[in-house]
Amino acid sequence: MSNIIAVDVMGGDYGPSITLPACHSFLNRTSDVCHLFGDANKITPWMLSLPKRLQERAHIFHCPEVIDNHTSAKDAIRKFRQSSMRLAIQSVQSGQTQAVVSAGNTGALMALSKIILSMIDGIDRPAIAKALPNLSIDNEDKFTIVLDLGANTQCVPKNLLDFAVLGLALHRCLIQDQATRSIKLLNIGAEEIKGNDLVQDTAQLIKRHSNLPYAGFIEADSLFTADADIIVCDGFSGNIALKTSEGLANLIIKRLKAAFEGSISSQVGALLLKKALKEKLGVLNPARHNGAFILGLNGIVIKSHGSATQEGFCTALNFASQQVHHDILKKVQIVMKDL
Amino acid sequence: MSNIIAVDVMGGDYGPSITLPACHSFLNRTSDVCHLFGDANKITPWMLSLPKRLQERAHIFHCPEVIDNHTSAKDAIRKFRQSSMRLAIQSVQSGQTQAVVSAGNTGALMALSKIILSMIDGIDRPAIAKALPNLSIDNEDKFTIVLDLGANTQCVPKNLLDFAVLGLALHRCLIQDQATRSIKLLNIGAEEIKGNDLVQDTAQLIKRHSNLPYAGFIEADSLFTADADIIVCDGFSGNIALKTSEGLANLIIKRLKAAFEGSISSQVGALLLKKALKEKLGVLNPARHNGAFILGLNGIVIKSHGSATQEGFCTALNFASQQVHHDILKKVQIVMKDL
Repeated sequence: MSNIIAVDVMGGDYGPSITLPACHSFLNRTSDVCHLFGDANKITPWMLSLPKRLQERAHIFHCPEVIDNHTSAKDAIRKFRQSSMRLAIQSVQSGQTQAVVSAGNTGALMALSKIILSMIDGIDRPAIAKALPNLSIDNEDKFTIVLDLGANTQCVPKNLLDFAVLGLALHRCLIQDQATRSIKLLNIGAEEIKGNDLVQDTAQLIKRHSNLPYAGFIEADSLFTADADIIVCDGFSGNIALKTSEGLANLIIKRLKAAFEGSISSQVGALLLKKALKEKLGVLNPARHNGAFILGLNGIVIKSHGSATQEGFCTALNFASQQVHHDILKKVQIVMKDL
Repeated sequence: MSNIIAVDVMGGDYGPSITLPACHSFLNRTSDVCHLFGDANKITPWMLSLPKRLQERAHIFHCPEVIDNHTSAKDAIRKFRQSSMRLAIQSVQSGQTQAVVSAGNTGALMALSKIILSMIDGIDRPAIAKALPNLSIDNEDKFTIVLDLGANTQCVPKNLLDFAVLGLALHRCLIQDQATRSIKLLNIGAEEIKGNDLVQDTAQLIKRHSNLPYAGFIEADSLFTADADIIVCDGFSGNIALKTSEGLANLIIKRLKAAFEGSISSQVGALLLKKALKEKLGVLNPARHNGAFILGLNGIVIKSHGSATQEGFCTALNFASQQVHHDILKKVQIVMKDL
């Protein structure tokens, strides 16, 4: 079945120059439909260049305004009534589309989504989640869902309980209903006595819910080892962990490239290693993992990285389609009913 | 001038089998003296194998007890009155030695140090600090001091102000009195409005102290880019950042090694790249950076990683010697006097 995905064409550091080619790839690979929200003057020429069979699955919705990265959440809500981001989210709310993808201003996307789509009954705050790859050599298809990655800088235990519920529902979408083994809490030690009041109190709260497969604390050196299916944390810690890993991976890759570009013998060595490096380090390519899930809303919202490449934005579109297909909102309801 | 360093020979995952050879290297490279606290039965044979000129600078202090990794801080204080860790710390307190290095149980080391050495007047809590290397290609000699890395899971703004003071004093030791340019607060965004109450209130507090070169917020993707001389954070976030980076770097290195050990062509490629990789990735070797500073105490305490190698433990001994040489306690006093 075809899903209909709303695309905020204008969002992100590169806007239509990235989002439109990504839509092209996405339309090519799926039978889904894209509703394109943005400046029709920019979208139309691209649209006309598409093969006919793809044109049929792309629809333009002209929006005269753009929310840029400097717009405050407050302004995004009060002003910019005709922005591509706002109208794309509204299309989900009205049922015209089934999910929205934007690479725009995260704060604005969160705030607008919350107001337009409203929260799921019983969930107090939205959370940002990502599926982090397993970087251990074995079980490369495994991953860990980590949330919240920055939506909530200050949390109470009930928020983290909600994140556990949302993470479980997302995990069930991504693994297509295999069993979820473990939800763990991010902490500075694995021992039960470790941590601050928030993680201690949250552990007690989550333990009371027997349908949540709670499995104790986990340290941040296990974020990329698939030792947990889901890792729950407050948005401050989660954001620190995410950005630390993004920054470090980026720097190491740059150093590697510098090593490869050195002497002639290094260049020959790099050539000989090309295949093996691609195989072992390809997993570090951010484009493969682009797309954060904004969970807890009555609607599917995917945030692409602002600087995502065409391949990356296409990954985010695929995530949206996958979530529609596996009906995450229904899965959240099921988990909550059993709580 | 020779410094006298107290070594907890029994601490760490490998105890004397690592700490003693590390002392050998250290004695070889410096004119310092080591006071070795531990089981004389294990230390004496090693001592007798040393060249005479080194033997003269190694002194054995027999301790019948060892604090292992499972000992609680409470037990470490109440029991184990004759432990190598305790007696080594006491030697700093009595003035017999000028710094102590241990790879043992962190909680016990913190608790014993606090009780035996006591806090510097005006500093409420000890902090764990490390100098993180600059992984950008340029300015490789630059680094960033980050604290607290896990001693304090719950902080108030005054604690973070103290950490800024301690970080500044440590920076002045390590850069040998060049000017410190910037102290930044770790946050989830660089904009002034971002973050939780703790970072917001701390920013206001630090700004009031004009001798602290406060330069705003910094995100976690800049921990390894030397964009700040000192980064201050609460111990929970700091520990998450440190362990995320340790875990990720470790996994990437393992994947690289797996790539190098693949096909014959990969192996030849790795051989050709050996020199360039060592040059560009050597900085990731944890042994080069081993040794965390436990700051805020009336005495110099260096915590080595529990699983440090001989080279790593020797680095920690060097850090201790450097701190004695540059008299960090006096530097803390100077910073505090100007507050």
